[in-house]
Amino acid sequence: MRISELSRRSGVSVTTIKYYLREGLLPPGRQTAATQAEYDDQHLRRLRLVRALTGVRGLSVSTTREVLGALAEHAGDTHRLLGVALGSVGVGEKPAEDAPQGAEVDQLVQELDWSVHEAAPARAALAETLDSLRSLGVPLDWRALLPYARLAEQTAVLDLDQLEGLADPLEAAERALLLTVLLEPALMALRRMAQENESARRHTP
Amino acid sequence: MRISELSRRSGVSVTTIKYYLREGLLPPGRQTAATQAEYDDQHLRRLRLVRALTGVRGLSVSTTREVLGALAEHAGDTHRLLGVALGSVGVGEKPAEDAPQGAEVDQLVQELDWSVHEAAPARAALAETLDSLRSLGVPLDWRALLPYARLAEQTAVLDLDQLEGLADPLEAAERALLLTVLLEPALMALRRMAQENESARRHTP
Repeated sequence: MRISELSRRSGVSVTTIKYYLREGLLPPGRQTAATQAEYDDQHLRRLRLVRALTGVRGLSVSTTREVLGALAEHAGDTHRLLGVALGSVGVGEKPAEDAPQGAEVDQLVQELDWSVHEAAPARAALAETLDSLRSLGVPLDWRALLPYARLAEQTAVLDLDQLEGLADPLEAAERALLLTVLLEPALMALRRMAQENESARRHTP
Repeated sequence: MRISELSRRSGVSVTTIKYYLREGLLPPGRQTAATQAEYDDQHLRRLRLVRALTGVRGLSVSTTREVLGALAEHAGDTHRLLGVALGSVGVGEKPAEDAPQGAEVDQLVQELDWSVHEAAPARAALAETLDSLRSLGVPLDWRALLPYARLAEQTAVLDLDQLEGLADPLEAAERALLLTVLLEPALMALRRMAQENESARRHTP
């Protein structure tokens, strides 16, 4: 397809596509004339991924390039690839200097017997939340998170099921990224709706 | 306690406390001298609530006043009170003009047999996510959300359980707000960690 069709099908403007080509986020098309190139479905998929990384996840162009590089590098290793896509390896994102220590999170992970990378940003995010609740006078024991974690295990099974059967590991990584990042607001919305329903069940006659 | 102790115990500066007093977000203390007033645990709790609404949830001072008014008005009606606290009634937050229609969300709620307010902001949030996924070329059928919704039901039971035994409905509303808003990042972090664990389980030898 021509760049105009790539633009139409991806919803990304021709100007932005040209910028991604210059920055190396998108491989060049097959040159068919001095000023014309052909693009294919691989370009469309890559464009979606770039858009998800820069737009939805808010990464900079240079971090996006790093992530794409890491994805290509680990193409044969599905677990590693998903790790990069899901941000658990945390390319280009260093933990803050004053990040909480997270001894409680370590205990939680140990109790759950989960295999989670030491430097996973999610560990820091969790420690930070426990800190916030403490500072607001509503301390939460890490043990109170155990039943939530068990439900998260079941959620993760649903998540990973959606990636099964995708033969192309890069496609799986792309989908993992989209589903993880974009499903977050949906899952939070479902929780709020379920709370309302549960509250109605308990508190209305 | 004096205002200085209220400040120390709440972590809110004296200047900010005085601002809240002027704006009517905090009821006046018991006057003990011309320039001195006594505050109690009710003030401390109210201060925490104001801080959660303005800080964590990012509400304006005037919207916070509306929410506090609504909380006081429905003090006898636990379900309504939790609705206000959890934002399902959506005080002061109008849905965007171009909000998605949400026919799929209606179908989902009907299929789940949930009791969810027509104007609940969570409905719009969900419709928006389904729209985003479609526009990114990864359409998700609403039926794919059913198993996630069933897990959300179980999460909501855990959430509401944490509010049981709080005799004071205002305290329950406060805690509902804190736990709902502040647990969101924790639950998303648990999901990411569980995904990593599940991916390790499936993809490493």
